Amino acid sequence: MISAGTTLRTVRERKPLVHQITNYVVMNETANATLALGALPVMAHAVEEVEEMARLASALVLNIGTLSRHWVESMILAGVTATERGIPVVLDPVGAGATGYRTATAQRILDAVGVTVLRGNPGEVATLVGAEAEVRGVESLGAGLESAELARTAARRLGVVASVTGAVDHVSDGDRVLAVSNGDALLATVTGTGCMSTALTGCFLAAKPDAPLEAAAEALAAFGAAAEEAAAGAGGPGTFHARLYDALYALDPETLDGRARIEEL
Amino acid sequence: MISAGTTLRTVRERKPLVHQITNYVVMNETANATLALGALPVMAHAVEEVEEMARLASALVLNIGTLSRHWVESMILAGVTATERGIPVVLDPVGAGATGYRTATAQRILDAVGVTVLRGNPGEVATLVGAEAEVRGVESLGAGLESAELARTAARRLGVVASVTGAVDHVSDGDRVLAVSNGDALLATVTGTGCMSTALTGCFLAAKPDAPLEAAAEALAAFGAAAEEAAAGAGGPGTFHARLYDALYALDPETLDGRARIEEL
Amino acid sequence: MISAGTTLRTVRERKPLVHQITNYVVMNETANATLALGALPVMAHAVEEVEEMARLASALVLNIGTLSRHWVESMILAGVTATERGIPVVLDPVGAGATGYRTATAQRILDAVGVTVLRGNPGEVATLVGAEAEVRGVESLGAGLESAELARTAARRLGVVASVTGAVDHVSDGDRVLAVSNGDALLATVTGTGCMSTALTGCFLAAKPDAPLEAAAEALAAFGAAAEEAAAGAGGPGTFHARLYDALYALDPETLDGRARIEEL
Repeated sequence: MISAGTTLRTVRERKPLVHQITNYVVMNETANATLALGALPVMAHAVEEVEEMARLASALVLNIGTLSRHWVESMILAGVTATERGIPVVLDPVGAGATGYRTATAQRILDAVGVTVLRGNPGEVATLVGAEAEVRGVESLGAGLESAELARTAARRLGVVASVTGAVDHVSDGDRVLAVSNGDALLATVTGTGCMSTALTGCFLAAKPDAPLEAAAEALAAFGAAAEEAAAGAGGPGTFHARLYDALYALDPETLDGRARIEEL
Repeated sequence: MISAGTTLRTVRERKPLVHQITNYVVMNETANATLALGALPVMAHAVEEVEEMARLASALVLNIGTLSRHWVESMILAGVTATERGIPVVLDPVGAGATGYRTATAQRILDAVGVTVLRGNPGEVATLVGAEAEVRGVESLGAGLESAELARTAARRLGVVASVTGAVDHVSDGDRVLAVSNGDALLATVTGTGCMSTALTGCFLAAKPDAPLEAAAEALAAFGAAAEEAAAGAGGPGTFHARLYDALYALDPETLDGRARIEEL
Repeated sequence: MISAGTTLRTVRERKPLVHQITNYVVMNETANATLALGALPVMAHAVEEVEEMARLASALVLNIGTLSRHWVESMILAGVTATERGIPVVLDPVGAGATGYRTATAQRILDAVGVTVLRGNPGEVATLVGAEAEVRGVESLGAGLESAELARTAARRLGVVASVTGAVDHVSDGDRVLAVSNGDALLATVTGTGCMSTALTGCFLAAKPDAPLEAAAEALAAFGAAAEEAAAGAGGPGTFHARLYDALYALDPETLDGRARIEEL
């Protein structure tokens, strides 16, 4: 059953620990989004502790936005541990398609780790399924497949729930496709909002580990609803950014389902 | 004598350099809190320069929030240098108790460095004195000792001023215990506010190095008073966070003592 | 021809990719400033990918604010690649003069890389031309040369466009000197605003690579004009910081030239 409000209520009640190995640019932002939603973030990347920390967590978030050799090793160590324990893993393949190193690293993680949800933009996801894609830096400029079809194809080929975000988001388990149309154009003017949506996907998965398709779509709807609220009255990207945490914190499990725009295609 | 206003005035007049080797998540936040208060932050972690930078500073802040091998080496190098020069050192043992690596690293720093003030949450500090503790990620869920008693015990056993923060903060040199009751519940909704209180403890120590018990309590009172001001009118965690720097900047040495709630137990 | 408005319009139209290898403290801030202006930031520092990423970019920004060995190697690899391809490079020598390691690293980059624009404070730039300088941490406390003269001298000796920022900024190619008097005192209360001005210099250079003197001055005027707008109505450093992105986003190519205060000395 799809109910962003019910899953949000579970997050707030359980305060799951969400272990994040992510990039330097957005660490503060994803930690704050996680806290504002009601879960507990922890950032830990040392090879000496990632396995222990991953075992304590209810979800693991891997994000290759500013990768380097030791961080990749840590992501794989933590990811393998989480996989063995049945802890859900979200992968954000930031910039796959922009450089060979990013593409190869995302593929390597997909091979080694039981990724539950792959959350990326169309260019990144298209790259990983071998479709035509254009990625400039960490920005998607286009993909050879339409987004819903891309999500379904990625889910099938990669054995994940694929969460492809854009003006409308598409989430698929390879069979069903859910379209999420919450959000605001200001999201694209603040760095790390994609990474935040990945972190929040981790929070929702922690609360609903047995239904990753639904959890991933609900997370995007909740984040998008918060963005809509934050945009109303914002003076631009900076005040929108501050108001986004206010809005995540203020999300109400009682009213969220009425605001969520999730459709099965 | 306890006077947060007087120490704040000294900070503003001297603009002490506060060298911080801290975690990736909060670097921007602690630097901005330091600047807003009126001191000068510098972040430097390379083994090639930490000793030179530490010698230039009026206080050193060590924070293990996202530790890894090279960073720990740098913290110890800088800490030993500061100790030799009589420069006060604040340690924030982020996540001690959550993983063995964090606990062992905090202990290793306590052994090698003349830590002046240990600033942590109850779970972290209890872990370091061998008391019962529950730490989830970097969040304290409880400690086997009541906070005032914990501060006193930690101060005695570890030979530091212990600053244990929570709804009410307790600061002890092993003999006296000061309770600080400034603050606001919104502090717990923003990541790095504990780390900010550690950085500000460094600023106050830089201005009052001969009275670390008082300086540590005054720093918490000043930070808490700023949080109270920031919370009034905030719409949630994001706008509270932005307003917190405004409030630190606006702290008035003339009126701060009247707002500080520091009590000797 | 000097026209900040025209260059801003080009940035908005082309959305150039600006590759930044910068410090941990300000990565989020410089990425957001780049996005708010209208360009695309990408942060990538792994030796495995910096050459490939630099080749894709329209400008490269190097900033030594939290340097360490591997990062310096990456900066040089990326810088040499950019130089070979004729891609403009901006260097921000954060803290040169504060420690020997920072001074030596800035010099090493200047030797190895064809730096187009050197953007620093008076103390940092004076250090690099061997003039008298006082740097505390990453703060300039003074320089032996007056700022306009310092910019001209640095440009001649180092073979760069020198951009020396302060209450009034001076930009020189060794022959001409442009003075920029936009800005607001609140800029000094937020960490990383100097680094943001460096990143925006990269954006303007990407749009006007054949006129680095003009581009560097225009970038400072645009940033300063945004700061003036942000300061009006700000409650202090925190709300100013949020409003700064709003103001960068709202900069209007039509009116910017009327607000820019650029004078040839």
